[in-house]
Amino acid sequence: MDLVINDVLIPDFKTQKFVKGCVGINKGRVVEVSQAPLKGEVVLDGKEAYLSPGLIDCHCHIESSYLIPSQFGTQALKRGVLHIVADCHEIANVAGRKGLEFFIKDSENTKCNILFAVPSCVPATSFATSGGEITLEDVETLFHYEKVVALGELMNYEGVINKEEKFVKMIELAKKYGKVVNGHAPKLTGEKLRAYVSAGIEDDHENETYEEVLEKIQAGLKVFIREGSAEHTKDKAYEIIKEYSEKVMFCSDDKTAEDLITLGHIDYNLRKAISLGIEPILALKVATYNGLLHYGLKEFAEVKVGNRAYFVLFDKNFKVRKLVIDGEVYDVKNVKSKVSDVPEFLLNSFKVRPIENVPRVKHHELCILVRDGSLITEKLVLAGHDQEYDLENDILKIVNIERYGHGNRSAGKIKGFGLKRGAIATSVSHDCHNILAVGTSDKAIKAVVNAIIENQGGLALFDEKEVYLVSLRVGGIVSNEEAESLVKKLRFLKEKAKELGSPLTDPFATLSFMALEVIPHIKLTDKGLFDVDRFCYF
Amino acid sequence: MDLVINDVLIPDFKTQKFVKGCVGINKGRVVEVSQAPLKGEVVLDGKEAYLSPGLIDCHCHIESSYLIPSQFGTQALKRGVLHIVADCHEIANVAGRKGLEFFIKDSENTKCNILFAVPSCVPATSFATSGGEITLEDVETLFHYEKVVALGELMNYEGVINKEEKFVKMIELAKKYGKVVNGHAPKLTGEKLRAYVSAGIEDDHENETYEEVLEKIQAGLKVFIREGSAEHTKDKAYEIIKEYSEKVMFCSDDKTAEDLITLGHIDYNLRKAISLGIEPILALKVATYNGLLHYGLKEFAEVKVGNRAYFVLFDKNFKVRKLVIDGEVYDVKNVKSKVSDVPEFLLNSFKVRPIENVPRVKHHELCILVRDGSLITEKLVLAGHDQEYDLENDILKIVNIERYGHGNRSAGKIKGFGLKRGAIATSVSHDCHNILAVGTSDKAIKAVVNAIIENQGGLALFDEKEVYLVSLRVGGIVSNEEAESLVKKLRFLKEKAKELGSPLTDPFATLSFMALEVIPHIKLTDKGLFDVDRFCYF
Repeated sequence: MDLVINDVLIPDFKTQKFVKGCVGINKGRVVEVSQAPLKGEVVLDGKEAYLSPGLIDCHCHIESSYLIPSQFGTQALKRGVLHIVADCHEIANVAGRKGLEFFIKDSENTKCNILFAVPSCVPATSFATSGGEITLEDVETLFHYEKVVALGELMNYEGVINKEEKFVKMIELAKKYGKVVNGHAPKLTGEKLRAYVSAGIEDDHENETYEEVLEKIQAGLKVFIREGSAEHTKDKAYEIIKEYSEKVMFCSDDKTAEDLITLGHIDYNLRKAISLGIEPILALKVATYNGLLHYGLKEFAEVKVGNRAYFVLFDKNFKVRKLVIDGEVYDVKNVKSKVSDVPEFLLNSFKVRPIENVPRVKHHELCILVRDGSLITEKLVLAGHDQEYDLENDILKIVNIERYGHGNRSAGKIKGFGLKRGAIATSVSHDCHNILAVGTSDKAIKAVVNAIIENQGGLALFDEKEVYLVSLRVGGIVSNEEAESLVKKLRFLKEKAKELGSPLTDPFATLSFMALEVIPHIKLTDKGLFDVDRFCYF
Repeated sequence: MDLVINDVLIPDFKTQKFVKGCVGINKGRVVEVSQAPLKGEVVLDGKEAYLSPGLIDCHCHIESSYLIPSQFGTQALKRGVLHIVADCHEIANVAGRKGLEFFIKDSENTKCNILFAVPSCVPATSFATSGGEITLEDVETLFHYEKVVALGELMNYEGVINKEEKFVKMIELAKKYGKVVNGHAPKLTGEKLRAYVSAGIEDDHENETYEEVLEKIQAGLKVFIREGSAEHTKDKAYEIIKEYSEKVMFCSDDKTAEDLITLGHIDYNLRKAISLGIEPILALKVATYNGLLHYGLKEFAEVKVGNRAYFVLFDKNFKVRKLVIDGEVYDVKNVKSKVSDVPEFLLNSFKVRPIENVPRVKHHELCILVRDGSLITEKLVLAGHDQEYDLENDILKIVNIERYGHGNRSAGKIKGFGLKRGAIATSVSHDCHNILAVGTSDKAIKAVVNAIIENQGGLALFDEKEVYLVSLRVGGIVSNEEAESLVKKLRFLKEKAKELGSPLTDPFATLSFMALEVIPHIKLTDKGLFDVDRFCYF
């Protein structure tokens, strides 16, 4: 045998018990499981440890980490996450199917088993200008990839409920090709929820409370408990695992590289469940077995003879001790991914020249109000206010510079960023990823916008002396460097933003949602100030 | 020996290891700790269990649970919390020193060791009308109680930094009587933080980020990691335990009865720390030893010969298995407190008659904007808006009815409660606890306000047919019934509020902060609409 793991606790999800045993592995598969110690070439001592199937992240947007898939995979592996289902709709908004195909290719550079869900709603609406689109034809093409296991979250639930042709056909295609259909049903309830489910939706991750997950499970959905950087299912909802342990899975949805490094990935959900009183065997079932079966990865879902040897060795507090990938043992400290070769069309994705003039504010009486930690903005009415910049009252200018060659530009007023000097900008701006900047003067805004254009993507800050930039060169939204070094740069930039006066926890993250026209109440797209409540421009 | 606990893991906080051992207890004290099994009358099998000192909640406002101390103590015990330091400034705002003295007396009805911090800032300001006051004389009187171990959080940090006489004297008194001086330093940093510490402040619980706790510890403070119902120290801040394990403690600050029952108390902080990668021995040190020493409870802080036998038997996942209190073994399921005899002045604390007319809105152009989960409000300017009720735009009337016999009443506009019919009201309204109501018509507001006045306190809801009331009869802010039955009633009322259209998670909790004149940006006290930013009335 290539590998023997003796004296280890193996989860048995049927009897819901851990069983002491010894595992023999040959050519990447389990060949023996016994009570008595086995002999082999490499022997791992499993004393007081759990040998578990790999953790699976059932739904995530890799781009939220600013990392490319291969580097994201490295961080996932360090946390015992051996399988990921990624819905990469950000790169699709920038570069369409070609962008996704690069991500699929890049994912081969990590030993993490990254699988894909084809984004179903790109672009999100027709109100803003994106660089890419995913057509019905693209969906079918992508379904031929072995690594594609799902149709990504159907965010346009009204469209699904109203049986819009495009969505009906997409779901039919998914069924035809044997792909899972991911849902997105925030606050959906009653009749509407039932209509959404009966359209063929299989799961949902937009869960906050216990009551929501209960209703969704009773309506026929599987539910993902989410621990992202900004959005969390509430602690009390974990209770559902006690009643419906087979219907629950874990996901991260959106997680920053910093949070992946410092807090963890699906191992965080796992330990949290246990800390909230869920039996370890049930928590582990939710973190591994349920998701693996959901996506048809039966061969990876249990430690038993014949199955693939993809395992995590956990210590008794469920910290990762070692990984077994395809029968090989890895120390989590030494996990690395291969460096990726990024194609030209993604390295130079900006079709806009440095700006000469900063656009002027159009609606002087309207102001976007932001609050720390929330994607939802409020509309402030400023009667008789006619200054573009009013630092005393924290009213700054925000601009949106479209970057795909159509020449759209817009400007508005915004309150809450708190900058006292300088400006900040980002080319990560959901979902279209045009350039957004907030600043205290036209000069400062121009400096940060042009720094991003010249670099072809990134986060920029101007402190009235120098421009600081974190490069996000791949499609203008992610970086191909290692997580640790990228995080250091991002931390530095956040500190700088504090020095400029911003009270926001992460002003770049907040800024990146200021163009998203599907979240209430007032946003600035490349075409102007958008009233989400009435779903039209002001 | 009265009690023997064999074969148990005992924390040794000096060597930072768990040691297997056996513990003998006689007359409420530890008389033997040995490697070999002991014999005695009652024998507890500690196999695979930890025997720990009792958990301590280093800072909490019992009233946030709507429970009186004895009933709060019952819930705490169920979670292994054997010691609590309570700053009961809510009852002090209602009934002054006499209110506190009843709480101290009531706390004798539970086996939980409830200790007290004398509230230092009652009332919070002179802008609103409270029922009670804590003078310097009161502080000194209360310091004579054995159960009083601290001077409560000095919320007026500007006053402390500027050496206002009252605070200088209070701190001097605390030092003289050997009491801990609790701090309250939200976002305090640099020079101001150092001035606050050098005034004699010893600890702080207003912590969110890792950077904050680091700076505060370096400035000389001990820090409490807080897990309340609304406010949480961030996960990343737990990291500080690895570097400064002796400077960190746990607290709950404000926790609802529902959260105490479903999520837990300090056991929640403990398990969360472990789930975030803190070594169990360090997490336990923070949850017990550090806080016990901070408040001079050395005899309770370690399992060793001569010490008091107040212990928690935890299973390996740190769930409470049994309690040992004063040498007696308790099953957590059977913990009960004695029923308290509430004095007349607290049962009938309302000096106001049912209202005939609902006050009229004064500033038609101003509107309070609330957001779910936040105490901070925003000022909306409604140019030309002259209706008192505008349901289509979710603009409702809010009223404040002063209840201590001064006859003050006020009214304003509020957006965010989302009621489509009826009204809700509460006599819990920080810090003065006058009556606050929000409703869709004068008729509905009158119904809920008068229901509270007639019952002498509680939460009320009117659905256009019936008035529903949860009685909070003790000082109009807490109940003397058991947590479980009270929680059922509160849940029912919250569900009812949803039926009326409110999207808020807990509209009664949100409402209870709408008069608090020290939290930005616009509030309604009994005297009118208050501009927190300029610290004066509109």
